[in-house]
Amino acid sequence: METLKQLLEGIPGASEEHETGAWKRLNAQIRPRGSLGRLEQMAARLAGIQRTLTPDVEKKIIFTMAGDHGVAAEGVSAYPQEVTGQMVYSFTRGWASINVLAKHVCADVRVVDCGVAADLPPDWPIVHGKIRKGTASIFSGPAMTREEAVAGVMLGARLVRDAVFKEGYHMIGTGDMGIGNTTPSTAIIAVLSGRSVRCLTGRGTGIDDSAFERKVAVIERAIEVNRPDPGDPLDVLSKVGGLEIASLAGAVLGGAHCCVPVVCDGFIATAGALIACRMAPKAREVLFVSHRSKEVGHDTMIELLGLHPILDLEMRLGEGTGSALAMNILEACTKILRDIKTFEEAGVTDTGR
Amino acid sequence: METLKQLLEGIPGASEEHETGAWKRLNAQIRPRGSLGRLEQMAARLAGIQRTLTPDVEKKIIFTMAGDHGVAAEGVSAYPQEVTGQMVYSFTRGWASINVLAKHVCADVRVVDCGVAADLPPDWPIVHGKIRKGTASIFSGPAMTREEAVAGVMLGARLVRDAVFKEGYHMIGTGDMGIGNTTPSTAIIAVLSGRSVRCLTGRGTGIDDSAFERKVAVIERAIEVNRPDPGDPLDVLSKVGGLEIASLAGAVLGGAHCCVPVVCDGFIATAGALIACRMAPKAREVLFVSHRSKEVGHDTMIELLGLHPILDLEMRLGEGTGSALAMNILEACTKILRDIKTFEEAGVTDTGR
Repeated sequence: METLKQLLEGIPGASEEHETGAWKRLNAQIRPRGSLGRLEQMAARLAGIQRTLTPDVEKKIIFTMAGDHGVAAEGVSAYPQEVTGQMVYSFTRGWASINVLAKHVCADVRVVDCGVAADLPPDWPIVHGKIRKGTASIFSGPAMTREEAVAGVMLGARLVRDAVFKEGYHMIGTGDMGIGNTTPSTAIIAVLSGRSVRCLTGRGTGIDDSAFERKVAVIERAIEVNRPDPGDPLDVLSKVGGLEIASLAGAVLGGAHCCVPVVCDGFIATAGALIACRMAPKAREVLFVSHRSKEVGHDTMIELLGLHPILDLEMRLGEGTGSALAMNILEACTKILRDIKTFEEAGVTDTGR
Repeated sequence: METLKQLLEGIPGASEEHETGAWKRLNAQIRPRGSLGRLEQMAARLAGIQRTLTPDVEKKIIFTMAGDHGVAAEGVSAYPQEVTGQMVYSFTRGWASINVLAKHVCADVRVVDCGVAADLPPDWPIVHGKIRKGTASIFSGPAMTREEAVAGVMLGARLVRDAVFKEGYHMIGTGDMGIGNTTPSTAIIAVLSGRSVRCLTGRGTGIDDSAFERKVAVIERAIEVNRPDPGDPLDVLSKVGGLEIASLAGAVLGGAHCCVPVVCDGFIATAGALIACRMAPKAREVLFVSHRSKEVGHDTMIELLGLHPILDLEMRLGEGTGSALAMNILEACTKILRDIKTFEEAGVTDTGR
């Protein structure tokens, strides 16, 4: 996995054989067949991803990818760009939402500076992977070069690979931090879906009507100026994406490469996941969408992925907060498969088929 | 709380003052206002229920109420009645779905024989609260007497009271076990909603078309024969309900009486919760519906309660399995309220309102 080509070509997808084996056990358990609904489907898929009938996702980590966006200067966000670095600091102190929710589900959090505009102190306990100091404004040109986009993808993929092989993590969650990053994410989904920017644009962290109109106009212009090629996901990523979005895509590809499940968070992380799945369609087989975000364009992303979000709690925060809660449900699925006894094992009358 | 009257009259509902206090903190936290969606609403409600700005639901217990149904003899279920006792045995051994999911969320499980038809060995580690050996068939008369229904309600309420005051539990979950119990639950919701039996009847644990037709006919006849008064929830419960459903209602009332949150499971447990809220409308303020069941009539129950289920995973198992998973989400809500820092505490620029 030294090159992008090696990364993409080494993605095997889920094992049908192990999924079939898992279904055999699920169908024999002391409960009506199918009664655990989507939990069963997820349990079988986890078996397929990890190629075992006893999948294990207990040791889990969330990568919160941080980056800044030149387009924030166009007034598309309710917050100033300096907040990205401030929030990264909060993550290192354990003060933020992702810290609280990750701790609740016993997941570790690793914060990655993929492209924060500010110089972050080298002694902060984060991954200092800055590719450049924020993207250029997509309002007037490409966010970054194609090489920078590849570097962002490989950063995410390598971090996941090392987490899996060097540290023994079994499941990866993704999350984002980046003021203004609903704007590039909306641009990405508009390009990939071909639908209208206005219908896909949301209020991000909470903007008013005039800022909303401005945001729609900025995204429309960004697509017009950059003309990203919907058939070339790297072109879309480099022209209207973001550095943290590149690493979010890379994390999905890295997970798929290493045969571990990847749980993506909301609007921004799913934009990254969508780019990943366009680069390597089999990556979709290791992917779980943690929740249905309140950000309007998210439904279109989910539709394009052909996946069903695990939770629907009207969240729209990012950071990996949705991933954290969904990882707990996925962990429950592994225990369902492993620990519920079969009719035969338990000696219960089974006529209920 | 020695009598039903005392139980019902001692239900205070949630404290608006504490909910308001909780919202003040939630709105000041380092994240966009409202960005945790329904988690915030649940966090505030938990503060209101427990009357504190630091609600705590860590020590939690699920009551799995078991009972048999005379109507099972009419061929409305895919399983024979003996399975109720067999499943209770499985619960005591830790083999069943509820054991696995409760353990996953660190909840205890207490199984209650409210009215299993079989004599269960006295050394089984369950609550031996049998009120009678199964209900009479609602096909030809009332399920039980009004006194037996009250006894079932008081059993559930007292078990919850003791769990809270003698053992220090902070949150209660409900679940059911009883072959044939989707039939009385459907009868209850048909009577309380006034809607057609056919539209509210589901496949339970998995019956075929002819058994489905039989089930609709049985429920229609049960309502015709018994003429339960929709304005008198105890009349409905005793005529077309069940012993475990009575205790499921009682658990909600007991929780409301003791100001602890109660999380109800799927179709059968929600039928009990609905009866409880008709008996004491303020009980609704401590109630959370854990999930949206795949059983068709559940949506109507939720609609009548005016609540929003926490999860939607196409589960239809019972036992308290939905309650278990939802309790974990509620526990996350208490940590959100308590542990995420405010902009002021964290020194983050807050212009994002």
